[in-house]
Amino acid sequence: MYKSEQLAHSIRQLIESGTLNAHEKLPSLRDQVQRSGFSLMTVMNAYQELESQGLIYSKEKSGYFVAEQIVLKPLEQYSVVSLNSKIEINSLVFKYLKSIQHESVVPFGSAFPDSQLLAAPKLIQIMGQLARQRQSYDQTASLPPGNLALRKLIAQRYCMQGIQTDPDDIVITSGGLDALNLSLQAVAQPGDYILLQQTVFYGAWQAAERLGLKVITIPEHPQHGFDLEAFEQVIQTYPIKVCWLMLNAQNPIGFTVSDDIKYKIAKLLHEHQIYLIEDDVYEELFYGGQKPLSMKYFDQQNLVLHCSSFSKTLGAGFRVGWVYAGKFSDHIQHLQLMSTISVNALIQNALVEFLSHHHYEKHLRTLRLSLERYKKQFYHYLKQHLPSSCEVYYYPSGYFLWVKLPSTLDSMQVYEALIQQDIGIAPSPLFSVLPTQQHYLRINCSFEWNTKIQNALDQVIKTIQQRVEANL
Amino acid sequence: MYKSEQLAHSIRQLIESGTLNAHEKLPSLRDQVQRSGFSLMTVMNAYQELESQGLIYSKEKSGYFVAEQIVLKPLEQYSVVSLNSKIEINSLVFKYLKSIQHESVVPFGSAFPDSQLLAAPKLIQIMGQLARQRQSYDQTASLPPGNLALRKLIAQRYCMQGIQTDPDDIVITSGGLDALNLSLQAVAQPGDYILLQQTVFYGAWQAAERLGLKVITIPEHPQHGFDLEAFEQVIQTYPIKVCWLMLNAQNPIGFTVSDDIKYKIAKLLHEHQIYLIEDDVYEELFYGGQKPLSMKYFDQQNLVLHCSSFSKTLGAGFRVGWVYAGKFSDHIQHLQLMSTISVNALIQNALVEFLSHHHYEKHLRTLRLSLERYKKQFYHYLKQHLPSSCEVYYYPSGYFLWVKLPSTLDSMQVYEALIQQDIGIAPSPLFSVLPTQQHYLRINCSFEWNTKIQNALDQVIKTIQQRVEANL
Repeated sequence: MYKSEQLAHSIRQLIESGTLNAHEKLPSLRDQVQRSGFSLMTVMNAYQELESQGLIYSKEKSGYFVAEQIVLKPLEQYSVVSLNSKIEINSLVFKYLKSIQHESVVPFGSAFPDSQLLAAPKLIQIMGQLARQRQSYDQTASLPPGNLALRKLIAQRYCMQGIQTDPDDIVITSGGLDALNLSLQAVAQPGDYILLQQTVFYGAWQAAERLGLKVITIPEHPQHGFDLEAFEQVIQTYPIKVCWLMLNAQNPIGFTVSDDIKYKIAKLLHEHQIYLIEDDVYEELFYGGQKPLSMKYFDQQNLVLHCSSFSKTLGAGFRVGWVYAGKFSDHIQHLQLMSTISVNALIQNALVEFLSHHHYEKHLRTLRLSLERYKKQFYHYLKQHLPSSCEVYYYPSGYFLWVKLPSTLDSMQVYEALIQQDIGIAPSPLFSVLPTQQHYLRINCSFEWNTKIQNALDQVIKTIQQRVEANL
Repeated sequence: MYKSEQLAHSIRQLIESGTLNAHEKLPSLRDQVQRSGFSLMTVMNAYQELESQGLIYSKEKSGYFVAEQIVLKPLEQYSVVSLNSKIEINSLVFKYLKSIQHESVVPFGSAFPDSQLLAAPKLIQIMGQLARQRQSYDQTASLPPGNLALRKLIAQRYCMQGIQTDPDDIVITSGGLDALNLSLQAVAQPGDYILLQQTVFYGAWQAAERLGLKVITIPEHPQHGFDLEAFEQVIQTYPIKVCWLMLNAQNPIGFTVSDDIKYKIAKLLHEHQIYLIEDDVYEELFYGGQKPLSMKYFDQQNLVLHCSSFSKTLGAGFRVGWVYAGKFSDHIQHLQLMSTISVNALIQNALVEFLSHHHYEKHLRTLRLSLERYKKQFYHYLKQHLPSSCEVYYYPSGYFLWVKLPSTLDSMQVYEALIQQDIGIAPSPLFSVLPTQQHYLRINCSFEWNTKIQNALDQVIKTIQQRVEANL
């Protein structure tokens, strides 16, 4: 261990044990040099390391202070099951997506991580090499179900997680949403009942609306994320054909459901023979420890269509996702040949090269560390400066923070006010149709901390503050 | 003019005037040198030029012979209007597409030109350069409606044809089929009537089936391709909401409808306020002369959604198409954000660079010349060797030949026999549901002539011969 790491380690212990309290001033650099006997450089490195981990923060000309520790807060108890025969979220989502896509808009509302973190240099190098070769563009090998070598590599990743997978189970798609839509089309018919989480990626609402499905939602559980009791009640009451669930780093809230609950969900799905479209596009963005299991892991009867993508780890501009389609592979390929035909050949070839040589694992490790650091910085800053009537939900994965405003505030109005200042945020009406869920915001915090980011965050905070004060 | 061109020109005149007859032997190289006073090299160049144009052919050790001249044959009179409430072409198409996609299969059944002709070296060079730059992958600028610079360049191409176009009228899509499907979704509702050509790209049947539309077909006209009388009759009888038509280098037959008829179609569309999904993906593959007009040219009321792509000119592996969406732009972007989200960013950027510097025009000129040469070679060879009870339809555009077998033969059986020999062809049941249209084949002839191609074509001919003889 380096000397700076030693020092950082002992200060971290003082913070985590509560010996040093939140907002307590740390010894100045000079004092610390004298106390510890380490060089100034060593002390500076240690402080910077702690700052990058979100454990301490600095104020100009005042020195370093202990940051507040992150305590996982329970979600508010959400309201009960709702049945929606008609959803009208589409035009809102469209207006929203168009408003935040301008380059001038600060992308706190974006669903994608900062592109600076993605497009791994090694992948760009491989793309540069393959792009110069004519055969990289040949469509034949890239036609549905997609490049065989790529499907083999994806199958291997499933096997590493203990999920027996054959390359023929995998279908490469034009991104994760394409995988989800194709999967739903393959299992559901107009008029079928679909079960969604109450607060959920808007793509699920849109897909259900487009296919003419009847939507039932279950509330999030305040502690566990997933409300198993409500789930059981719904599937005993309604003839649910298919569920569309996100259980790892759930979008927009961020929670990850425990393996124990996943096992119980799987058991109920099997008992009732219900299909599951599993949206697992954030599966790689866990912090530390082990990768959470997917529902596919517990699936013995080919009821789970597991959908994922490279968009959240390597860049959305690539448009490559996949589905573990199993017996639905033919049906899904069929749908592809009627729509997008195939996924870009060059990029499939580049991904094969990139995944073959463990570049992906290395990239993911760096990415996870950066996301964790940035998210902690955003969390501490918001926690410190938002009015106390607001709540910030932190979960150790992904790059979203879920912010609760006082229930008298309308998050759409906050969004409207901020977009006028060229700052995007994602208001909760994008994710939930319930009138009781209109006062939440999703903030993308995948950005390296700098003055521009801090200023934008200050504007978010100020805009919320003003509305809170006006409401008092 | 070079001497060899002079010589080739005078021989061409002798052939076209009928002074030299089909299969008549030309003077040997030596004789020609003596007669003309030109060098052996000049005479050889002239003969090779004429051969590449399909005007003469060579037999080993026998010398050069005059090829049969191409006379455009009228199509067989097709049967009358048909109304299909339920189409079941999907599983046939799927089985077919899967069977021909193996690399070992000779791709006479493919819908795409030989990839050797596409992926222009300059485009590959640009891709190689841009692929090394991180900013090429940024999704923001590529989101719907697509890269602005690319839309400007496409709009300019419309303007060059006299079609007033604003970049905001254009939406970039994941290939041509995606453009067609999105356009149809934007204008048609389940239960609406759609008018199709009787023999048509299967994607049109599939889209109609998927959207739950009622299909009316009109027959092809034996001389003009498009049967204006049948068209008028149908739109006066049925409440047609939308037509899906291909009028330039029609797939699978190959004809191009005259500007005069296009004008009359447009007039009728306007009178009856019927939308048109115009499939124009072969618009650039005309031979010589001028680019045929699109229906968009005659459209004064924004009824035409003109769909095209780079798949048939630069390579299907890119997956970039577009639609002139006009007032439907928002609706179509909306549908994109719910499905594929966006088109690959890198490739949109590369196309901007490629199209900006006239590389595309240069590439198209070479491509057209090659396709014309190859198609003529295929035509002459098939004409010469197929049983006389077969007919080969040649049109001066694209890269398909449409072959009529004796009506007692079933083209599906010919396809089945050939796929056993690893040769793909496209049988007419893929394109028409009429029982009277089961004895046609579409042959892709975009391949440079060589022994392998000739052998495969010989197998096609032999397989047909055997079936003709067995039927006598």
